[in-house]
Amino acid sequence: MDGAGAQVQTAIDVLKQRFGDRLTTNDTIRARHGTDESYHAPMAPDAVVFPQTPEEVIEIVEICRDHKTPIIPFGVGTSLEGHIAALEGGVSVDLGQMNKVLEVNAEDLDVTVEAGVTRKQLNEYLRDTGLFFPIDPGADATIGGMTATRASGTNAVRYGTMRENVLSLGVVLPDGRYVRTGKRARKSSAGYDLTRMFVGSEGTLGVITDITLRLYGIPETISSAVCTYPNVDDAVNTVILTIQSGVPISRIELIDEVQMQALNKFSDLGYAERPTLFFEFHGTEAGVAEQIESVRAISDEFGGADFAWASKAEDRSKIWQARHDAHYANMQLRPGAKAWPTDVCVPISRLADCIAETRKDIEESGLLAPIVGHVGDGNFHVDMVLDPDDAEEVARAAALNDRLVARAQAMDGTCTGEHGVGYGKIDKLAGELGEAVDVMRSLKQAIDPNNLMNPGKIVRL
Amino acid sequence: MDGAGAQVQTAIDVLKQRFGDRLTTNDTIRARHGTDESYHAPMAPDAVVFPQTPEEVIEIVEICRDHKTPIIPFGVGTSLEGHIAALEGGVSVDLGQMNKVLEVNAEDLDVTVEAGVTRKQLNEYLRDTGLFFPIDPGADATIGGMTATRASGTNAVRYGTMRENVLSLGVVLPDGRYVRTGKRARKSSAGYDLTRMFVGSEGTLGVITDITLRLYGIPETISSAVCTYPNVDDAVNTVILTIQSGVPISRIELIDEVQMQALNKFSDLGYAERPTLFFEFHGTEAGVAEQIESVRAISDEFGGADFAWASKAEDRSKIWQARHDAHYANMQLRPGAKAWPTDVCVPISRLADCIAETRKDIEESGLLAPIVGHVGDGNFHVDMVLDPDDAEEVARAAALNDRLVARAQAMDGTCTGEHGVGYGKIDKLAGELGEAVDVMRSLKQAIDPNNLMNPGKIVRL
Repeated sequence: MDGAGAQVQTAIDVLKQRFGDRLTTNDTIRARHGTDESYHAPMAPDAVVFPQTPEEVIEIVEICRDHKTPIIPFGVGTSLEGHIAALEGGVSVDLGQMNKVLEVNAEDLDVTVEAGVTRKQLNEYLRDTGLFFPIDPGADATIGGMTATRASGTNAVRYGTMRENVLSLGVVLPDGRYVRTGKRARKSSAGYDLTRMFVGSEGTLGVITDITLRLYGIPETISSAVCTYPNVDDAVNTVILTIQSGVPISRIELIDEVQMQALNKFSDLGYAERPTLFFEFHGTEAGVAEQIESVRAISDEFGGADFAWASKAEDRSKIWQARHDAHYANMQLRPGAKAWPTDVCVPISRLADCIAETRKDIEESGLLAPIVGHVGDGNFHVDMVLDPDDAEEVARAAALNDRLVARAQAMDGTCTGEHGVGYGKIDKLAGELGEAVDVMRSLKQAIDPNNLMNPGKIVRL
Repeated sequence: MDGAGAQVQTAIDVLKQRFGDRLTTNDTIRARHGTDESYHAPMAPDAVVFPQTPEEVIEIVEICRDHKTPIIPFGVGTSLEGHIAALEGGVSVDLGQMNKVLEVNAEDLDVTVEAGVTRKQLNEYLRDTGLFFPIDPGADATIGGMTATRASGTNAVRYGTMRENVLSLGVVLPDGRYVRTGKRARKSSAGYDLTRMFVGSEGTLGVITDITLRLYGIPETISSAVCTYPNVDDAVNTVILTIQSGVPISRIELIDEVQMQALNKFSDLGYAERPTLFFEFHGTEAGVAEQIESVRAISDEFGGADFAWASKAEDRSKIWQARHDAHYANMQLRPGAKAWPTDVCVPISRLADCIAETRKDIEESGLLAPIVGHVGDGNFHVDMVLDPDDAEEVARAAALNDRLVARAQAMDGTCTGEHGVGYGKIDKLAGELGEAVDVMRSLKQAIDPNNLMNPGKIVRL
């Protein structure tokens, strides 16, 4: 063990004394904490600690700081770009035991939660208030993790992403200080936007411990529908025209025929295996009726087949649970395979071209790679299902991913709409942002000069 | 002239050689460029320069950097917290000649403009596209200035502020490099949110040269209304219930009776001089009708008098121009006076209490101080009209402002909802954000280590 390593051992010893059973070096638990839901190579941390209060997080950060030991904040481990791999070893800080809803302000449509609260737990908790929190990455991620990765999901086209829905947050900085980035006012011009600085920082600037979120009233009327199209182009053009027409649609998701096969198999849906859109409309009864009328007219133009409607809550849940399970369904397509879910986002006017070129590219690559996406935002995923032990296949997937990212960036889009950078896309940033990556590096160095917070993610120092 | 001053003179000489007539040291022009629309003491820069391209901005920044000369970016000078006062001298960079609309992407609902384009100019330019940009501070400010101050205005309750509506921007950093913070994709998780770092940075982190903004379709139906209430409490409670009910109202503005007197006088409106709400509804015909029905029911509960409707564009314009002129109208209430417009923002549930206590406080202070506000966001302004040469009156106003800010912060609100920090509220940040202000200072030092970009604003180094 080198000098740095020896310090890690000292940090672990001190943490063990302080946290007892809530500090573990068990191999299985360590492995679990360095492994996300992606293809990217996992890397176990040297130990995992389970704080229960912000004060304990401060203690942990201070101990790690004093012994130059890397810290990797952990929610439930559902990220997709290697975010939680302990590339330089260190301590995984599992926030799962900080899972209290701290304060619901129903009158102000906001809530403050601890970082370990999951999105489903939150909505369950809110059920009796008539309010809900809309952001829904596929997994039942923690609010802390969703904040750290700037997550979005199917509702973003209407409600925005974590960027728009975090009002403020509390964070333990790399030097052990706890700060709150703002008050509960809906807007503020009081200085630099520290809230947005930490949203999407992927654990590299501090450990987020508590988050204040915007909430929304559960709409009077909710209606979901499933509609199939002659080809992907027609489905995508339906999306484009819907967005350009300003219809305030809540969800509009593309599922290509390969993805639909996977969903049918995984969730026993019995849908036609053709390019499909899943829709959801929120509003008053009349408002929803009006939205549906507009979208149906657009859909008809592009050969959309009969809408299959779901207005009952349980039928709607079935549709959206199937959609959220896409990644898990894909892994079942090929037993023993792993899935590498990459995501890009382009201006909506380029979406049809980008998806068409990508489908051609997938076909030529010979890879199994369903397409699914939050297409209302111009965001789509290619979930490459592969054998991680087949080096040639992995190389083909990597090349496909490289071309996909380059294609999206050339269309004035981004290398990731919602999955984040982690270490999987760290080399894609320069092609997108040029010297702005140096500004990111300056920011990282200013807040975390010793590079102890989730090192090797977003930017390399 | 001290050592630092001598360097400023060298910088000016070099700039003069390079920019000729577009560099001026004319006293009137200098004075104008150090004077905003607030009460705060102005401070003229040593020179004013008028670049026409981003390349020229880079040259200016490099020259100033080499001669350790402060740079103060300037739009049209309508900010309100002393943002453009050249506290340490230096060069004002007037972006008014960079006023081209660079690219409208109507299909993607976005536009890229140079920093000197004003909001009215932009909407005039967009007229034939069926699109508009909603953010509307009272003044016809530049998009660059609005970005730098994180401006909002009357439409923010529906459309958000500059925070939500800047997709990306181009900025010349203090070291002379130009960077672009993002692409045109609607969402991105590609690293730290540099866009939001510069939105609201008040010229302290770089010179913003070009901005990509979200646009919106002009609604099918727009309807405005004016309604009076028995007292301010009833008006505010109408607002609170409207927001809590989730009505997607586009504008909901409070004008107290003192402010209404000023507007009547300035704009010859002939409205009743009572607590008043200005409303605006955007949507489809049926949607607007439904919104109006909901709001009218709420308003009736609180004794709202008959709505005066304005559906014709010119009548609506008259209402909103009057609202935008509030600050100018107030200065006319007392010839020779200046107005000190302070602004706070609180959670909506505290709005009635905050305004009631503030009105009592104003009354007891003996000051003339109309209240007007974007109350749908919990944001309101107290515009203190005073004689700047009367030290006792100024002290009374400062004390009123101190109490107002402390009151809002104690209610989990912010010292400024939209005007920003400048140097007027620099000492209010610590009471709101504690040690988070140190994080802001670290950020400033990382990006502008020599403290040359608008020094003395937001944080002191």
